[in-house]
Amino acid sequence: MCRALVTRITLSNLFERLPLSDSVIDDLRNVLGAIVRTDAEILHSRRHDYWAVSHLRDWLKVALETPRCVVQPTTTAEVQTLLRYCNAHSIAVMPFGLGSGVCGGILPTNEVVLLDLSTMNAIREINEHDMTATFEAGKNGLEAEEAVAAHGLTIGHWPQSIGVSSVGGWISTRASGQFSTAYGNIEDIVYSIEAVLPNGDLVQLGKAPRAAAGPDLRHVLMGAEGTMGVVTAVTLSLRKAAQRRAYSAFYCDSMPQGIEAQRQIIGADWRPPVMRQYDASEVKRNFREYFLEGKALLFMVHEGPAVRVEAELGDIARIVAAAGLQPCDPAVAELWMGKRNHVVEWKDFFEKGAVVDTIEISAPWSKIDTIYDDAVASLKAREGVITASAHSSHAYRSGVNYYFSFAALCEPEAMESMYFDCWRRVMEATIKHGGGIAHHHGAGRLRKPYLESDLGATGVALLRTLKAAVDPNGIMNPGNLIPEETITEYPR
Amino acid sequence: MCRALVTRITLSNLFERLPLSDSVIDDLRNVLGAIVRTDAEILHSRRHDYWAVSHLRDWLKVALETPRCVVQPTTTAEVQTLLRYCNAHSIAVMPFGLGSGVCGGILPTNEVVLLDLSTMNAIREINEHDMTATFEAGKNGLEAEEAVAAHGLTIGHWPQSIGVSSVGGWISTRASGQFSTAYGNIEDIVYSIEAVLPNGDLVQLGKAPRAAAGPDLRHVLMGAEGTMGVVTAVTLSLRKAAQRRAYSAFYCDSMPQGIEAQRQIIGADWRPPVMRQYDASEVKRNFREYFLEGKALLFMVHEGPAVRVEAELGDIARIVAAAGLQPCDPAVAELWMGKRNHVVEWKDFFEKGAVVDTIEISAPWSKIDTIYDDAVASLKAREGVITASAHSSHAYRSGVNYYFSFAALCEPEAMESMYFDCWRRVMEATIKHGGGIAHHHGAGRLRKPYLESDLGATGVALLRTLKAAVDPNGIMNPGNLIPEETITEYPR
Repeated sequence: MCRALVTRITLSNLFERLPLSDSVIDDLRNVLGAIVRTDAEILHSRRHDYWAVSHLRDWLKVALETPRCVVQPTTTAEVQTLLRYCNAHSIAVMPFGLGSGVCGGILPTNEVVLLDLSTMNAIREINEHDMTATFEAGKNGLEAEEAVAAHGLTIGHWPQSIGVSSVGGWISTRASGQFSTAYGNIEDIVYSIEAVLPNGDLVQLGKAPRAAAGPDLRHVLMGAEGTMGVVTAVTLSLRKAAQRRAYSAFYCDSMPQGIEAQRQIIGADWRPPVMRQYDASEVKRNFREYFLEGKALLFMVHEGPAVRVEAELGDIARIVAAAGLQPCDPAVAELWMGKRNHVVEWKDFFEKGAVVDTIEISAPWSKIDTIYDDAVASLKAREGVITASAHSSHAYRSGVNYYFSFAALCEPEAMESMYFDCWRRVMEATIKHGGGIAHHHGAGRLRKPYLESDLGATGVALLRTLKAAVDPNGIMNPGNLIPEETITEYPR
Repeated sequence: MCRALVTRITLSNLFERLPLSDSVIDDLRNVLGAIVRTDAEILHSRRHDYWAVSHLRDWLKVALETPRCVVQPTTTAEVQTLLRYCNAHSIAVMPFGLGSGVCGGILPTNEVVLLDLSTMNAIREINEHDMTATFEAGKNGLEAEEAVAAHGLTIGHWPQSIGVSSVGGWISTRASGQFSTAYGNIEDIVYSIEAVLPNGDLVQLGKAPRAAAGPDLRHVLMGAEGTMGVVTAVTLSLRKAAQRRAYSAFYCDSMPQGIEAQRQIIGADWRPPVMRQYDASEVKRNFREYFLEGKALLFMVHEGPAVRVEAELGDIARIVAAAGLQPCDPAVAELWMGKRNHVVEWKDFFEKGAVVDTIEISAPWSKIDTIYDDAVASLKAREGVITASAHSSHAYRSGVNYYFSFAALCEPEAMESMYFDCWRRVMEATIKHGGGIAHHHGAGRLRKPYLESDLGATGVALLRTLKAAVDPNGIMNPGNLIPEETITEYPR
């Protein structure tokens, strides 16, 4: 399984298309000018995103392929021109935001034009009255947040990667932020999407606060990970900065006890923006001064009008006490707030002989405990695994996510197979008990072999049908997300 | 324009396909048995939905076409069999729920197989722990709500039509309920969708509380109004019945003053489930005992944990007072609660020489006041119009909807052109000022000529591309929703 997966991920990039000859590059330069770059430095810098496997291969001195050229547009019209050209000539285009993806969505080859959106990063508008802001796709997330914060507003979307991810990337991967339990995921925050389709058509999807005017076409782009077109700008629906913020924290005797408390909090119609529950292993690792042997830890960040925050604190304290939880110093939540956007360097782990990653899944309340038990047990059963743990970080009326972490020690040459084997173990435990394989990091090339579990064979066939219709020449990020294997033919 | 619109709506059903001969019906009977019905009574009863124009034509003794046959499945497998047969023979299929549509989504001809889902109405599961319930598509909305209410739960989705609409219809039209400002629209309530694609494939879309596993394919069916396949069952994510309910009401000197108060309530992060604002004309008509000359009326229903409802009442009273509103007896909101699901009989109006309808649109805060002024003025400028008014009923962070009402007196033979002209006036005022043409009733054949305003020419082309891919033989509800006119070719 492990080897098969690796092979498939490598092969999926060897799509059949003409090599990008020098004359094609000359042609592109004639059409687009100096934004078409082939200098070694830019090609090298765009050879991968933040996927651990790419970094591992790099660290192992496996020469990663670089894109054949990097195009750095500053206007939507340039993106249209590029896609029209590439569509006419069946040239593969790989859209690249700020490179924070962690699932193999970006894996360039020298047959690929890498479309670098980091150069499209303007703030087009901040509308305080309508509470909207429009950013070009390559805008850095933290810069976008800071721009609206200067007006007393917030996007309310805080992925851990906020300092290194782009607004367009949030759309393309269906991102979630740390405050999602109250403020929603990116699909609840986006107002409209400007995108260029593979044929060069410019679409502006989303016109009103809400519509019943046919299917919501924004969802063709959201989560498509560059396979359906290129997101060039995004309008987000904002919030005012909260009047008050407060913290609470509680110890749980077990993960299921805490999960049940969360279910009751949501059932009572409370929505603390942040609600995170760490198992004892993660408490010890991340919040050592709060560690109590065998105890899980649930903490919350409460925000909103001061009177509501007061009401929420009191009612939730009552609910969790009834569920058997014990108070913990809420300073642990503040501690988390201070370090929550830290992004690790993979090579720091490789150099210690360790391969690590996180894997987020979600499931209904009734299935999440079994998935936790099985995934952690399966990871721990693998020789070399030294930690296997999880926390929850996003709650819904009908269930919750889990964010698994693993660390394993092995020889450098075994790290890649260790990585894929750990992933396989969590995916298989999730699938076995009816969970969803991906909460918010996207699928990329990494989860592609498991996509059928979420969508079913007919759902994958439907996705392939949509892809073939929108991108008939298959130019958009080929090999990503959508299984090549024809699982079910879609007969006419 | 008016005549052109009528002509287009009529023509759109004259799609080219083979007439449904007796032998086709015999064939269908061989395959599906007695669920294929051709008795005059059933054909007659399914000749239209709740669209005012169909009822008007009926009342005028214009012989409405009936479907060639009505198929009444009780299993998903029967729906698959039907679609496979019809797809192979290019036979048009028109899915029909409980017939509460108001935009011309159902307009049978005798070349159409009407797929009557009212016979698929089972409750498959109510899961108290996961807070989900699964209903077959034809389940009556009120019966569904009552079934979960017996467990202390609520769907929280209260369209005015709840007593006469189906759960599947909610999905197909992207319905909104009266409590949407807190509880969301149907897309926020649906957990998963079981549907049969035109080729007979069964898909189950939605597996987990949230996913980032490619585009959210549930949106292929949501809002498709029967053009992309047949919704056969729906799993909804429930809530517990609220601990407390309270009411509040306030007079506004003008509609813009009340809209600004709503904007500030939402901006402060309060979400009363119901927030409705009626202009003076509607207050006089609907809440006569509360009418004050020239005053608009904003009322709210507050629900949730008792302590939060208390906090919400106090804070909102402060916000609206600062915005210049004056208290009104909250009993007006209770009065509305008691009569909110009343559904009129169109012929009661026709018999009085009047044609009436409601038209819902939405817009950003900054555009809604101008749309209101222009739409009402344009309606009133039409000779024969005796009332033109509006209320808002669904608020969002970035805007709000308006629900326009008109009544016009004219000779019976002029009623249809009066109807389309009044619609045109509201659509044009909305479009002129940048609003969205449809908040929650769907588009059907009625709004189809205006769809390009919401989606743009390229967006319509994208929708047509998706339709052609999913339904290559064009069997699903042909003529509905998607403009036939090739506005933009989608080149390959």
